[in-house]
Amino acid sequence: MASEDDFLALIDSHFPREHGHVVLGRGDDCAILTMPDALCLSTDLFLEDVHFRRGYFTPAEIGHKALAVNVSDIAAMGGDPLGFSLGLMVPPGLPREFWDALFTGMAAHAAAHGLALTGGDLSRAPLLGFSVTIWGRPFPGRPLLRRGPVQPGDRLVVLGPSGQLGLARQGLRLLEAHDREALADWPACTAAHLMPEPQVAAGRTLAAVQGVHGCMDLSDGLARDLPRLLTFGQAPGLVPGARLELDASMLHPELLAACAAAGLDPVAEAFLGGEDYALLAAVDPAAMPALRHAAAALPAALLDLGEVTAAPGVMLNNTPMTGQGFDHFSKR
Amino acid sequence: MASEDDFLALIDSHFPREHGHVVLGRGDDCAILTMPDALCLSTDLFLEDVHFRRGYFTPAEIGHKALAVNVSDIAAMGGDPLGFSLGLMVPPGLPREFWDALFTGMAAHAAAHGLALTGGDLSRAPLLGFSVTIWGRPFPGRPLLRRGPVQPGDRLVVLGPSGQLGLARQGLRLLEAHDREALADWPACTAAHLMPEPQVAAGRTLAAVQGVHGCMDLSDGLARDLPRLLTFGQAPGLVPGARLELDASMLHPELLAACAAAGLDPVAEAFLGGEDYALLAAVDPAAMPALRHAAAALPAALLDLGEVTAAPGVMLNNTPMTGQGFDHFSKR
Repeated sequence: MASEDDFLALIDSHFPREHGHVVLGRGDDCAILTMPDALCLSTDLFLEDVHFRRGYFTPAEIGHKALAVNVSDIAAMGGDPLGFSLGLMVPPGLPREFWDALFTGMAAHAAAHGLALTGGDLSRAPLLGFSVTIWGRPFPGRPLLRRGPVQPGDRLVVLGPSGQLGLARQGLRLLEAHDREALADWPACTAAHLMPEPQVAAGRTLAAVQGVHGCMDLSDGLARDLPRLLTFGQAPGLVPGARLELDASMLHPELLAACAAAGLDPVAEAFLGGEDYALLAAVDPAAMPALRHAAAALPAALLDLGEVTAAPGVMLNNTPMTGQGFDHFSKR
Repeated sequence: MASEDDFLALIDSHFPREHGHVVLGRGDDCAILTMPDALCLSTDLFLEDVHFRRGYFTPAEIGHKALAVNVSDIAAMGGDPLGFSLGLMVPPGLPREFWDALFTGMAAHAAAHGLALTGGDLSRAPLLGFSVTIWGRPFPGRPLLRRGPVQPGDRLVVLGPSGQLGLARQGLRLLEAHDREALADWPACTAAHLMPEPQVAAGRTLAAVQGVHGCMDLSDGLARDLPRLLTFGQAPGLVPGARLELDASMLHPELLAACAAAGLDPVAEAFLGGEDYALLAAVDPAAMPALRHAAAALPAALLDLGEVTAAPGVMLNNTPMTGQGFDHFSKR
């Protein structure tokens, strides 16, 4: 992969150019998109040794996850992801086979969600890295926002794969300790870290229900993301709190086993979490029957974690918590 | 700058949230934009020691250029830049004063073009780097594309600051050799590299003239970008060529002096160029009077370099040329 042209030819072999919302696809100075009314847009970085390691990710898993964490941002708005642009940082020495496998993983995820690759940039760099900007259509008329704002009495729910809370956190810990040998004993934990599935259908379901007062995707874990959801759009001094009940029956059996083997508290680990990529929402209690009914049609579980309280602070199983979750910024 | 929250507060102090095309600004999972009909979108990387050096760029110049090179992509479509998202790679150890100056430079350029910062991502990283995704409104009805396609007989013109060709290339060479001491003797060359000004008004002028068959911004220099313009949208085997006449009278006096001092051929240096950020266009000869008239109102010079030929290959002053310009990808 000596030249930019080699890369562009390989990208062309993996990603089709045509798309219903793309007037002008990649190759020109800009792409031109058409959107009926509004467009949602989000940019995320996905960097080697910050967000992933080449040691235990396959190239296809890197390609998948670089895109999936961005699709999750559209899911959190109840939107339809439609396309993305890609800033690709290319370190020296990776063979064509690596890139072919990486684009295969990325293209499979793009195809699964009907996404067009509309352009981007390539640069040599000291590390493998991705900047994906994803765009899509917000939920018609009423996008799902973080700020409803959340109101005291709201139920706090998580919608996503069953037992998702904390699973990727254990996966990361086990992969860091045992590399890919961890996959044999901990398939669910490691898959949650390596191949997260953004919850697009769950986001649309939440957006369609009247009475969802706020929603975000759990990328940094409940401990860090819940305070954000509670704070967003609130007047200073009037930020509500939350009372959560989380027990082992709500967690994945593999998470319980992994925590038992390591002497960790599974409930605390699920609360800290990180990269859960389930959706966290605050829901008017009157809307819960409609949400349960709608969620029953999804390949996702609805977890009722507790309620928003007028009193500030987060109580987990009657114990006050401080936010100390997953922070991509300050540490791995 | 220990935490993500410190960064976000600093960003909030530099960039306003409100904008006519922004329904939902930064802070949520996505931004939501409204556009009347179509939106143009482009992503570029701007990485330390690939695209810039911290040694001789001030922080404000880094902030300016990270954004300006993206604005140039919208300019090349004849579009109106409206906003951007920012993926920011944060290396260790840079003080708050550095970031404050960097955002000051970026915000000044954003304000000059009326751009909203609509979101993005922060990550620690081993290098200072930027991924900017810029969005805007294409020229109404008829965006300026690379593919007209270009036709034999078209005039090849450059629209941009007077004497721009090759100036940034000399600036880079002089800054690499003498750091900021080069600024005293070579203010125009160094400014062209450090603080490029995207040609938004020139792009709109080109888009408004009937008979412009193709346009792109000169980011990699004539030697590399002209073959791209000639190739784009052409049937294989029918790619046209070009015959250019470039002499010293078309070049900046400071470029002539810098080349004389270094024993370089100024015409060859202008042809190789790189980061010129002027606009290169192929124009129906019948449209040249209208273009000259419209360009006279701009703070930019219109340079008529020659013509598109049916015969393939690029001739410069009657000598055949091969493309060997500036390649961010394979080398600095």
